[in-house]
Amino acid sequence: ENRARLLINCPDQPGIVAAVSKFLYEHEANIIESNQYSVDPEGGEFFIRIEFEAPDLKEKAEKIKQDFQEIARAFSMDWKLTYVDEIKKMAIFVSKEPHCLLELLWEWQSGDLMADISLVISNHETSRDMVERLGIPYYYIPANKDIRAEVEQKQIELLKQYDVDVIVLARYMQILTPHFVDVHKHKIINIHHSFLPAFIGANPYERAYNRGVKLIGATSHYVTDDLDEGPIIEQDISRVDHKDSAEAMKKIGQSVERSVLARAVKWHLEDRIIVHGNKTIVF
Amino acid sequence: ENRARLLINCPDQPGIVAAVSKFLYEHEANIIESNQYSVDPEGGEFFIRIEFEAPDLKEKAEKIKQDFQEIARAFSMDWKLTYVDEIKKMAIFVSKEPHCLLELLWEWQSGDLMADISLVISNHETSRDMVERLGIPYYYIPANKDIRAEVEQKQIELLKQYDVDVIVLARYMQILTPHFVDVHKHKIINIHHSFLPAFIGANPYERAYNRGVKLIGATSHYVTDDLDEGPIIEQDISRVDHKDSAEAMKKIGQSVERSVLARAVKWHLEDRIIVHGNKTIVF
Amino acid sequence: ENRARLLINCPDQPGIVAAVSKFLYEHEANIIESNQYSVDPEGGEFFIRIEFEAPDLKEKAEKIKQDFQEIARAFSMDWKLTYVDEIKKMAIFVSKEPHCLLELLWEWQSGDLMADISLVISNHETSRDMVERLGIPYYYIPANKDIRAEVEQKQIELLKQYDVDVIVLARYMQILTPHFVDVHKHKIINIHHSFLPAFIGANPYERAYNRGVKLIGATSHYVTDDLDEGPIIEQDISRVDHKDSAEAMKKIGQSVERSVLARAVKWHLEDRIIVHGNKTIVF
Amino acid sequence: ENRARLLINCPDQPGIVAAVSKFLYEHEANIIESNQYSVDPEGGEFFIRIEFEAPDLKEKAEKIKQDFQEIARAFSMDWKLTYVDEIKKMAIFVSKEPHCLLELLWEWQSGDLMADISLVISNHETSRDMVERLGIPYYYIPANKDIRAEVEQKQIELLKQYDVDVIVLARYMQILTPHFVDVHKHKIINIHHSFLPAFIGANPYERAYNRGVKLIGATSHYVTDDLDEGPIIEQDISRVDHKDSAEAMKKIGQSVERSVLARAVKWHLEDRIIVHGNKTIVF
Repeated sequence: ENRARLLINCPDQPGIVAAVSKFLYEHEANIIESNQYSVDPEGGEFFIRIEFEAPDLKEKAEKIKQDFQEIARAFSMDWKLTYVDEIKKMAIFVSKEPHCLLELLWEWQSGDLMADISLVISNHETSRDMVERLGIPYYYIPANKDIRAEVEQKQIELLKQYDVDVIVLARYMQILTPHFVDVHKHKIINIHHSFLPAFIGANPYERAYNRGVKLIGATSHYVTDDLDEGPIIEQDISRVDHKDSAEAMKKIGQSVERSVLARAVKWHLEDRIIVHGNKTIVF
Repeated sequence: ENRARLLINCPDQPGIVAAVSKFLYEHEANIIESNQYSVDPEGGEFFIRIEFEAPDLKEKAEKIKQDFQEIARAFSMDWKLTYVDEIKKMAIFVSKEPHCLLELLWEWQSGDLMADISLVISNHETSRDMVERLGIPYYYIPANKDIRAEVEQKQIELLKQYDVDVIVLARYMQILTPHFVDVHKHKIINIHHSFLPAFIGANPYERAYNRGVKLIGATSHYVTDDLDEGPIIEQDISRVDHKDSAEAMKKIGQSVERSVLARAVKWHLEDRIIVHGNKTIVF
Repeated sequence: ENRARLLINCPDQPGIVAAVSKFLYEHEANIIESNQYSVDPEGGEFFIRIEFEAPDLKEKAEKIKQDFQEIARAFSMDWKLTYVDEIKKMAIFVSKEPHCLLELLWEWQSGDLMADISLVISNHETSRDMVERLGIPYYYIPANKDIRAEVEQKQIELLKQYDVDVIVLARYMQILTPHFVDVHKHKIINIHHSFLPAFIGANPYERAYNRGVKLIGATSHYVTDDLDEGPIIEQDISRVDHKDSAEAMKKIGQSVERSVLARAVKWHLEDRIIVHGNKTIVF
Repeated sequence: ENRARLLINCPDQPGIVAAVSKFLYEHEANIIESNQYSVDPEGGEFFIRIEFEAPDLKEKAEKIKQDFQEIARAFSMDWKLTYVDEIKKMAIFVSKEPHCLLELLWEWQSGDLMADISLVISNHETSRDMVERLGIPYYYIPANKDIRAEVEQKQIELLKQYDVDVIVLARYMQILTPHFVDVHKHKIINIHHSFLPAFIGANPYERAYNRGVKLIGATSHYVTDDLDEGPIIEQDISRVDHKDSAEAMKKIGQSVERSVLARAVKWHLEDRIIVHGNKTIVF
């Protein structure tokens, strides 16, 4: 189609919206959706996401990008222009528990996840069947901390080979090295099985059970070098009570994990997320 | 201060945002917050709310309004410009149950409800103390369906006398006549004690109990001539189960009513609501 | 295993719990979980569900049932004793939209739905693959209101052939005749795509959109002759706003439908639901 | 009235419910509500709360207590018998922010908080008016860490003088000494303005804002020597997003704090909470 999304952040000052909307109007673009946010109108950071439609967009694309540079320079903008019909290529990493993978596959089959699921990488064979059945390549790469470097090398090659845009850790229980994270900055989405910053690290359900909490949750975030400390995209919770064992909490939590991760991935695919420092703006 | 809000709706077409933002920029206004929505970019209705700041706004106010008329005409706009420091004058109507009134008074005391509560009108004496204690005039006007016309006449006179901008029915258990509603179109906010359109009319908690629902709710809406059929502003629910009697549901529900009404009133006071047909756009 | 569940309702009076717990103790049963509820301790209806464990339960089963009749008579009890390892046989009816079916299949594969899914019946071929792949028989029976009698005859025969205990209408878009409903009283679980009693009948999402509600929901209930009026088992909602089209509401709602139906079916399978008049007690 | 509550915990073994219910039956008690829970039926801890009614309860009270000791010994029970009409005496501690205090006062005025609010103690004068207006004594005791011992001495004397049963810290921003906590074990209820264990300690809203969470919450718990580590009674959350400043989060959070604390206090007053290790069983 003829749709595109323009994401901008820059220091706030008067005239940004006027300049950008005039530019789009002059390039025959009709704004479909627009969201903006300013940390502080007096010189704080300004963010805007505009989804627009323009006839013959493909042919004008290069010229639009070139013409926009003048505005971008004038306002010191960080910006990105993406085309809605350039479907992002996604890799899913999974370990043994398949619930998050299944949710993504199911959303994808229903047409609600606008991505090209290029491949699934796992350190277990468990999910091969359900993945290959859908015609998606499945790569089994055994992993543990002693062979981390080689494992990641194989993974990086596969990701290059498939020209992957986004990596979803759908309960992938291996830690990634700073090198791997650097190479895919703000392109790795993880699901952590607690409402962060509570229960950072391993076994959150067991620790939630031991602490006697009345809510359990899940958090989807971009992966950074600091374990479970990356920019949070989405969180949700479910109620539990004294009758729920750690095992029961895990079951209840899986359902939260599924929906939280699916929402985060969809927002990423629709270019709705801007990372700002260690936070996200979700439009 | 120097803050204002511009609310616009008009048929969607290219160039609206460009025109409006250029206009604001030329009048030295800095956009603080902007929200827009289009029912259908191909000729559907377009809505926008812009909150902006401009130096010496008071002095320029008239000129801004006048200058804007040209744009408004060009795009066939319905529009409204309000000043943040022109606090709205509010009347609260209440019957016996004080919980919604109390919530509003409490939010107002905390500085979270930017209104001037000009008067409280009630068909009971129950809440006089708590209202007068805060220095707010309390008018006791007995009411029933036989004397509706006279009652409303008195009420209308009071509302005129106090130059009231918005009327909140904080569990006022009397039906209003079409005349009263007409005079205050989209200015009367009601709280209904069910998640409409379930349980329209009287005794919703009893009927919810009898139906055996597992959720009860509350709905805040603008009042129209059709009972409980006006544009919905906000809704929320709370869980109940078989152990909850109709009386228990009422108690649980009161807490939902309080927060739903308070949210709706705040949004109205901040000019966040545009009524479109029988629906609301809440920015 | 050696686990069973005793479900009782009878007029409330002193001594019920004493009699039942003494009985269980004398039959060497250890109570694992017990829930009770009394509409009104002064002669209202009393309900109790006891899950217990007893050594060599299978061998004692007949004797327990026989011995219990004395107590049952003394307190005018309606009662039911079920064995946890007698897995219920389930039939799933589905039309075109597979999301609820998929959720049940997925919960079943994960071991969280303790049923034997004996067969799936559909008036469409859409879901055949995903069902047969799991080794579950799939029966395609075209249906419309003109051939309802014959269709139901075929269905009833299949249900008998498979000795089915519970029927789940996982978005089966055909109305059932009173005869069909009678034959399977309190054994048919439906999911309706609204928070009943709002939007009874067809096209609830479209009507929700037109009404401008801020919440959409789903309701799981036992099927009775009155369309969408049967005893409610579970309900839940999700937030929507003015930006959500009827189509978007449908997508959001499907996720609510899935979880509401899954919970209701699980509770039924665990004998947690007692129907009382047109309501449910869920223990 | 003639109502009482029996709370028991003991090692699980067969026959507990039979013995207790037989005992109550023989003492002409009719069970109104009964809840039980077993950590593990094979020798785990067993908990039960029974609310019952018996004619002339007051006269029989002593005898019941005495007779019950035999059963209690046989099953090694910890137990407590409370009478519904022995209203608990409550002290509320508050600092500057009055929202939690106000919620409790409002629930109390509505008849929904079955306590005798004996006194309010504050290290500020802020809330004196609203408290004294309701006829409740207000004690202003300035506090800071240097004079902690003297301050607590005065507080303990007041609590003794009023024979207080339960202390509610309704946003009391002073740390209590181990001595004060010891003297009132499991009798001090606090509200912490985060979903613990996230954001233990000071300034949780600011830290939540800085971490970029998408949910904020509140936790009510019994106070122990370990700051914010006591047994959790209730928790809840509210959604926030990137637009919410730390200040906005605080406002949103106050509403959660109010309802979470009110629920926890009600449950305590109704003897619904059993503390077990560092967790609560809430019946």
